[in-house]
Amino acid sequence: MIHGHDDALADGGSIEQNWSESQRDIMEATYRVMLTEGYPDLSVSKIADELGKTKASIYYHYDSKRELLISFLDFVVDQFHLNIGEVANKDPEPALKAVIEKLIPTEIDKERFQGQVVLTELRSQASQNEAYRERFTEINELLVRTICDIIERGIDTGVFRDVRAVHIAEHIVATTNGARTDRVTTDREAAPAAVRASLLSYVDSELKQSK
Amino acid sequence: MIHGHDDALADGGSIEQNWSESQRDIMEATYRVMLTEGYPDLSVSKIADELGKTKASIYYHYDSKRELLISFLDFVVDQFHLNIGEVANKDPEPALKAVIEKLIPTEIDKERFQGQVVLTELRSQASQNEAYRERFTEINELLVRTICDIIERGIDTGVFRDVRAVHIAEHIVATTNGARTDRVTTDREAAPAAVRASLLSYVDSELKQSK
Repeated sequence: MIHGHDDALADGGSIEQNWSESQRDIMEATYRVMLTEGYPDLSVSKIADELGKTKASIYYHYDSKRELLISFLDFVVDQFHLNIGEVANKDPEPALKAVIEKLIPTEIDKERFQGQVVLTELRSQASQNEAYRERFTEINELLVRTICDIIERGIDTGVFRDVRAVHIAEHIVATTNGARTDRVTTDREAAPAAVRASLLSYVDSELKQSK
Repeated sequence: MIHGHDDALADGGSIEQNWSESQRDIMEATYRVMLTEGYPDLSVSKIADELGKTKASIYYHYDSKRELLISFLDFVVDQFHLNIGEVANKDPEPALKAVIEKLIPTEIDKERFQGQVVLTELRSQASQNEAYRERFTEINELLVRTICDIIERGIDTGVFRDVRAVHIAEHIVATTNGARTDRVTTDREAAPAAVRASLLSYVDSELKQSK
């Protein structure tokens, strides 16, 4: 799910948390190591090697691997924010469809597939790890709020029917989360496209005000 | 998600794979150890202790912990089959709603919560482990096929509109999978009930033939 992060970071400013350049470098390196090594084999040494720096230079910013990983999840939250923010400001109907399309891409390259593997692993840790759970709670909150806002904007402007926005937003977030996890944990390659098609047609039939 | 398995196993017969009594005992013990210890700390010794038997008696059935875990996932697939089969034979509309209600229970006790934690951990391994991925593929296939059959039955009998059954089945499975994973990986306690309500009302508005 972390994609287009170079562009996203390039425009700076809008990002929630302020990341210093070294912190960003560490986060980017952490992500690259996760992509190649996977989450279980991640170590501060490998991140340092990837950065071409010493372990001490990482421990200067983060007291422990644990702290670094929590910070990495904050970074992931910010990426979600940026990625979704990019499209959420369109008119309600195209905005909602664009968010769904972003959350369930029909095809993904190897890097994004691997990114999703990493996120699925991190998410599974969230059931045991409170700090992780807080971040995944934040990601879901953010997505539900963004989608809810779009739907409410649609209702206010008469494009959408007067539906229960929060229920539908929760529905859409659960569906897109399920589709993304299923993509990397099953061999059912045609499934994400079918889910996406059904969700987009749901927007048309359930939300759009009939003319 | 493994629930009501005692009842389910009691009626026997309908289960896909034939499990000998000792194999069932080992699977049940594996599940109990996973519930208390979590997946990462699972060991054959602990399963043997839980059973009150020797490790050798487990290795008599399974060559390795790896093989035992794959068999455990086959057992999970069978549980899904039994749990869903129980309700899928009703009339199309109540059957579809009962499947959704079973897949997104509004409240779950500690044991079922912990069972979902274990399944989420096992599922996250599926991206790296082909044998696991096959089992989760099978679970999703089974759910999609069951829901698709119900929808097609509804179309044939004129209860449901002539919709694209497979797209809607994929949509429902992704949504329920997402809701179940979100339940154990976030602190958003009200979310599953909202998703379930939205999905049930989707069945009414999208599928039901207007009278």
